[in-house]
Amino acid sequence: MDLRLLGAGIAVLSGIGAGIGIGIVSGKAIDGIVRQPEASGKITSTMILGAALCETTAIYGLLVSLILLFAVK
Amino acid sequence: MDLRLLGAGIAVLSGIGAGIGIGIVSGKAIDGIVRQPEASGKITSTMILGAALCETTAIYGLLVSLILLFAVK
Amino acid sequence: MDLRLLGAGIAVLSGIGAGIGIGIVSGKAIDGIVRQPEASGKITSTMILGAALCETTAIYGLLVSLILLFAVK
Amino acid sequence: MDLRLLGAGIAVLSGIGAGIGIGIVSGKAIDGIVRQPEASGKITSTMILGAALCETTAIYGLLVSLILLFAVK
Amino acid sequence: MDLRLLGAGIAVLSGIGAGIGIGIVSGKAIDGIVRQPEASGKITSTMILGAALCETTAIYGLLVSLILLFAVK
Amino acid sequence: MDLRLLGAGIAVLSGIGAGIGIGIVSGKAIDGIVRQPEASGKITSTMILGAALCETTAIYGLLVSLILLFAVK
Amino acid sequence: MDLRLLGAGIAVLSGIGAGIGIGIVSGKAIDGIVRQPEASGKITSTMILGAALCETTAIYGLLVSLILLFAVK
Amino acid sequence: MDLRLLGAGIAVLSGIGAGIGIGIVSGKAIDGIVRQPEASGKITSTMILGAALCETTAIYGLLVSLILLFAVK
Amino acid sequence: MDLRLLGAGIAVLSGIGAGIGIGIVSGKAIDGIVRQPEASGKITSTMILGAALCETTAIYGLLVSLILLFAVK
Amino acid sequence: MDLRLLGAGIAVLSGIGAGIGIGIVSGKAIDGIVRQPEASGKITSTMILGAALCETTAIYGLLVSLILLFAVK
Amino acid sequence: MDLRLLGAGIAVLSGIGAGIGIGIVSGKAIDGIVRQPEASGKITSTMILGAALCETTAIYGLLVSLILLFAVK
Repeated sequence: MDLRLLGAGIAVLSGIGAGIGIGIVSGKAIDGIVRQPEASGKITSTMILGAALCETTAIYGLLVSLILLFAVK
Repeated sequence: MDLRLLGAGIAVLSGIGAGIGIGIVSGKAIDGIVRQPEASGKITSTMILGAALCETTAIYGLLVSLILLFAVK
Repeated sequence: MDLRLLGAGIAVLSGIGAGIGIGIVSGKAIDGIVRQPEASGKITSTMILGAALCETTAIYGLLVSLILLFAVK
Repeated sequence: MDLRLLGAGIAVLSGIGAGIGIGIVSGKAIDGIVRQPEASGKITSTMILGAALCETTAIYGLLVSLILLFAVK
Repeated sequence: MDLRLLGAGIAVLSGIGAGIGIGIVSGKAIDGIVRQPEASGKITSTMILGAALCETTAIYGLLVSLILLFAVK
Repeated sequence: MDLRLLGAGIAVLSGIGAGIGIGIVSGKAIDGIVRQPEASGKITSTMILGAALCETTAIYGLLVSLILLFAVK
Repeated sequence: MDLRLLGAGIAVLSGIGAGIGIGIVSGKAIDGIVRQPEASGKITSTMILGAALCETTAIYGLLVSLILLFAVK
Repeated sequence: MDLRLLGAGIAVLSGIGAGIGIGIVSGKAIDGIVRQPEASGKITSTMILGAALCETTAIYGLLVSLILLFAVK
Repeated sequence: MDLRLLGAGIAVLSGIGAGIGIGIVSGKAIDGIVRQPEASGKITSTMILGAALCETTAIYGLLVSLILLFAVK
Repeated sequence: MDLRLLGAGIAVLSGIGAGIGIGIVSGKAIDGIVRQPEASGKITSTMILGAALCETTAIYGLLVSLILLFAVK
Repeated sequence: MDLRLLGAGIAVLSGIGAGIGIGIVSGKAIDGIVRQPEASGKITSTMILGAALCETTAIYGLLVSLILLFAVK
């Protein structure tokens, strides 16, 4: 049976939270750049850090999904 | 059985988070352009960056979905 | 079995996020037009850009849904 | 089997996001009309545009649902 | 099998988004009437318009639900 | 089989959105009464109107649920 | 089969929306009492009215749940 | 079959809404106590009332869950 | 069959709402301590009360889950 | 059958609420440290307390998940 | 059967909450850096602490997922 493949399709959904989270971070970064344009370097680097931290949760899902697709029989 | 194809239909739902996230980023960008029209270039480029970061989570889902549709038997 | 068709019905749900996201963008655009009516051209074009970026996540879902309906056997 | 019909019932749920999104847009439009009554024409037309963009995601779901009901066997 | 009837039960859930959306619109309308009582006619008519636009997404779900209940065999 | 009855149990969930929506409307009405006590009649009537509009989406679900329970075999 | 009983378990979930909605209403009522302590009678009665309106959606779910438990065979 | 017991597990989830709602009420109560410490008695009693109203929706779910566990065969 | 154990796994999810609710309460408590440090005792005790009220909904789920795991056969 | 293991996979999802809740608490703590840097000790300890209270709901899920994995046959 | 692998795919979804939570924390951190650039060290370290606390809930899910993939037969 292909429940393994169904699991692969479900696992990647963990990116839903990351997608919302990165949106919140990036939105706040734009807010910050508007109010303090001279600090845009620091703001952008904090935004990248925050987005990377959110992204980890999507990566976990992608990892489990790829394991289910290719590594487990 | 077609559980593989059901998985493909589910995997693409990871775009739900990205859809909300990009909406938050773009909304903040409009806010920013209204308050600081002269910074609209920088704001738009940060918006594109943020939206691209959100989009990655939708792309993971699309990727797994396409693998399930065409690459896995 | 018709799990393929069930998958098609599920895939199109990725538009849920886009629907919320476009609402956020458009709402902010109206906010902007109220505060800076003279910038309404620029605001509307950023709104269209943001909505188009959100829409991509709905399009991925529609695409997978149509593939499941018509292209995969 | 009737999984096709179950899929039709699920597909139309993509309107959930649009329902929330249109609510956000319309709420902001009312906000705008209260603050700038003289701009109500422009605000209402932007509201209709935003609602139409949200509605597309509901239409995708309705479309897939109707295809599942009547066009696919 | 009665998957057709299960689909009818699911389809009507598309009203969830509309229920939230109409709540947002009506809440903003009350806000507006409090701040600009003399504009309550215009506010109420925009509220009805916004609620009607949200309602469309619930109607799609009801329509598909009724088709599944009575029109499809 | 009793999928008909499972569908009845699911259909009534469309009240989830209405429950949140009515909460938003009523909360805003209390806000309004606090700020403009002399307008409480108008505010309460708009609140009832908004809640009734939200309630329609719950009624659709209840209607489909009762049809599934008693009218369809 | 006991799908009837599974349906009963699902139907009562319509209280999720009401739970959130009543929370919003009650929170706003506390806000109001803090700002206008002398209006607390009117605020509390509007809060009870709003909570009762939210509660209807939970009652629909409880009603369907009890029908599924005891009235339908 | 144990679908009865699965239903019991699902029914208790109606507490999700109450959990969020009580959080909103209690958070607003803390806000109020900070701004009007001398009114903390009245605020706490309104908070308890609001939390109790939210709790009803969790109790409905617990009730149905216990009926499914112990009263229905 | 192990549907009993699946039900146990689902029942404990009622903690999702409590987790969000406690977060809202605790966040407001920090807000309060920042604005009124001298009232931190009262704020912390209200926070504990609010969190305990939220926790009840998680406890209901844990209780049903443990009954399903150990008490029901 | 492995429904026991499926239940273990579902039970751990109760951490979703805790993840959001801890995010709200920590975000408010940062807000507080920015406004009252001299109170950062007290703020951090309240943040840890709040996060620990949220975490309990995730622990319940992990506990049930581990029981399902290792203790129940 | 592969329900074990389906469970692995579901368990990793507990990262959804963490993804949103980390987004909230990081967004607030950017807010803080904009308002108090000289406190950015302390803000960033609190952000990392908050994100790590959120991350625990995603780790629980990943842990259960890996146990289901590799440790349980």
